[in-house]
Amino acid sequence: MSKIISFIKSPVRGMRDYLPSEMLLRESVIKMIRDTYALYGFAEIETPAIDHIENLTGKQGGENETLVFRILKRGQDLVKAIENGSNELSDIGLRYDLTVPLARYYANNLNQLTSPFKVLQIGSVWRADRPQKGRFRQFTQCDIDILGESSIMAEIELIAATADMLSKIFSRVNIHNFTVQISDRNILKAMAKYVGFTEADYDDVFIILDKFDKIGLSGIKEELTKKGYDPASIDKYVDIFQDSANILTCEEFCAFLPEGYLDKQIAENLDTIIRCVRNMVNEDVNVIFDPTLVRGMSYYTGTIFECIINGYEFSIAGGGRYDKMIGKYTGTDICACGFSIGFERIITILNDHVNNNPMEKNVKYAILLEAGITAEQMTAAFEKARKLRQSNTIVTVQTIKKNVAYQISRLEADGYTKIEKVYKNA
Amino acid sequence: MSKIISFIKSPVRGMRDYLPSEMLLRESVIKMIRDTYALYGFAEIETPAIDHIENLTGKQGGENETLVFRILKRGQDLVKAIENGSNELSDIGLRYDLTVPLARYYANNLNQLTSPFKVLQIGSVWRADRPQKGRFRQFTQCDIDILGESSIMAEIELIAATADMLSKIFSRVNIHNFTVQISDRNILKAMAKYVGFTEADYDDVFIILDKFDKIGLSGIKEELTKKGYDPASIDKYVDIFQDSANILTCEEFCAFLPEGYLDKQIAENLDTIIRCVRNMVNEDVNVIFDPTLVRGMSYYTGTIFECIINGYEFSIAGGGRYDKMIGKYTGTDICACGFSIGFERIITILNDHVNNNPMEKNVKYAILLEAGITAEQMTAAFEKARKLRQSNTIVTVQTIKKNVAYQISRLEADGYTKIEKVYKNA
Repeated sequence: MSKIISFIKSPVRGMRDYLPSEMLLRESVIKMIRDTYALYGFAEIETPAIDHIENLTGKQGGENETLVFRILKRGQDLVKAIENGSNELSDIGLRYDLTVPLARYYANNLNQLTSPFKVLQIGSVWRADRPQKGRFRQFTQCDIDILGESSIMAEIELIAATADMLSKIFSRVNIHNFTVQISDRNILKAMAKYVGFTEADYDDVFIILDKFDKIGLSGIKEELTKKGYDPASIDKYVDIFQDSANILTCEEFCAFLPEGYLDKQIAENLDTIIRCVRNMVNEDVNVIFDPTLVRGMSYYTGTIFECIINGYEFSIAGGGRYDKMIGKYTGTDICACGFSIGFERIITILNDHVNNNPMEKNVKYAILLEAGITAEQMTAAFEKARKLRQSNTIVTVQTIKKNVAYQISRLEADGYTKIEKVYKNA
Repeated sequence: MSKIISFIKSPVRGMRDYLPSEMLLRESVIKMIRDTYALYGFAEIETPAIDHIENLTGKQGGENETLVFRILKRGQDLVKAIENGSNELSDIGLRYDLTVPLARYYANNLNQLTSPFKVLQIGSVWRADRPQKGRFRQFTQCDIDILGESSIMAEIELIAATADMLSKIFSRVNIHNFTVQISDRNILKAMAKYVGFTEADYDDVFIILDKFDKIGLSGIKEELTKKGYDPASIDKYVDIFQDSANILTCEEFCAFLPEGYLDKQIAENLDTIIRCVRNMVNEDVNVIFDPTLVRGMSYYTGTIFECIINGYEFSIAGGGRYDKMIGKYTGTDICACGFSIGFERIITILNDHVNNNPMEKNVKYAILLEAGITAEQMTAAFEKARKLRQSNTIVTVQTIKKNVAYQISRLEADGYTKIEKVYKNA
């Protein structure tokens, strides 16, 4: 026995190891994401996992900025920092999302990028969150953005590509029915203004409206009343959504509003987006205008959208137009529209629907060789493995173990359906 | 203009952004690695980027352990640590290689893994090294290991899969001639013993022998003499390599050794490995026994191997058998054999041989729409995009920009050879 060294077997708190079967599923989803967005002309990029503390604490990331894993300074820098007190122990940290790095990347590489810049990012992010079931401190994010396209072509390409990708992924587990909800922040605001809420109340009102799917219109009325809003405004607000329940286009919905509350182009654009996307995706994808859609992030400036699946409370993708955000980093306003895919949520749903890995359809072949066979027997076995691999069959060659029954049962569990044993020549 | 926030555009020192063309190349190589090893029955796994400081400073990683990026403790833990002095400011850090995490992973998940465990890892590692040309503080490593296979089947599968993968990758840029050098640590030791070097000198002598490709036999003689070794030993040592220049098999080479210096089985096994691998790979791969091969890492216990390409001083992959290392972490000896692929070196070589991305052979189609076209024109354009994408053509749809000539030149640079413009109906 070798001398044992001090060692901790379990992963760091809130982090996890991926087993081979989990990796197969994750990589197959990543491949589908990559392949689909490539067809739509999106280019993949990668930024370093580590960014400047200044960028990670620029007040754009909200609560996430308090969750940054900071990296300790080194050598003389650290000695000096300790003398100066704790705030200067670190000047770099791990990224907590892919949006801040995208803004930095765009500013840094602008001259080498095509405009509009259609970009895909898939990568790990880290947050020192309280770990809990299904929430880890390292997880995969997947963002798709179009920078520099001010027209609704950005929305159409983003939503169509995302619906296309999701319908491909979910059809593998026979989920054939998901919904893309689309709206516009300006419609939300116009409605709130029209019924008499003041601008200072918008955020608060929208947070309540956002619960529509869970608590229904009566619940919304109740919560708004509890908050003490003007009963006339509340009634008028609730009536709009009541009356619009069967309305399908944004233009029809906006007819509730008197002239002057909303630029007509906005409703027209939204309907064009919906019509174009419907033409571009499979029939099993519902693409709808949803006036109750809110999207929490305050940086959205126009169109907002979300993908949901019946039976799951969380959305599986969401995004919108955010024309004012990148400029805060780069110093020059640049229009932008993006979709954030809930990668870990997709994996969760797929795991709910498959007992074993759905990607393994090929025959897998195991050749087991007894210890001590001749060099010629061995050569022949590897020759056979070569031929099978050339015709794209997965093959493993290994020694027959003492407990061959157990060995075979493990191989079968791994999908090896053909097993051949080679014994020493008599 | 939005209010600008404090922001640093360039990546953190020693880190880098990957442009779309660089990503395409990197991802295409990763895909070839993944696909090839899958055919040989290797399973991919992933470990967290962050590991325990205890594991990262267990004295197995040599100099790399001094290069760990340590992550600062948080909250009350940090307050307490500052009171106690600098050594306790951090209890986790970023991994500096994939071997230490593999040992931890294996110990942690043993019951869920098949034996032998044939495993592929591709991932980022971080080292606070002095940045210099071509050396970054975050880079990709690619390791392939077989744990729990004591026979030479491990060596054969590893070397054949690796040679197969490399020959596929390099044939893309018309490099058709690379060499796999194979030897065994025990042969090195037996030779050194036979000519009269003492065991304490082995490491020193092998470091000099390792320069064979650069300084030749005369250079080796010179360096050994300078170090003051016995001239008779030096002459005998140099003569062996001189006399063996035309010898092809390990058994012939080992015939130089009198009985008792080397277990005959070792030479026989090495020749079987070489013969089997030759049968399994393309003819343009040279698979040779090379008695001058050393491999720096002292943890190798048997077979060692390395892949080289003419014209490059560095090896592009290297590895060997290390039966005593995993046990130091896990407490139970487990035989192991591994290959480490120089991923960043492969990318460097591919970049030397291609002016643009070699993977883009498909037609790419750009549809440019004038601002203000009708909704019907837009619908038709996206309909067309849909059809093209269904037949696997890459399509981008975007607005015609003011400087359309520049826009088109950028699109062409990105590989869009078909460009269609749609103007407003007259």
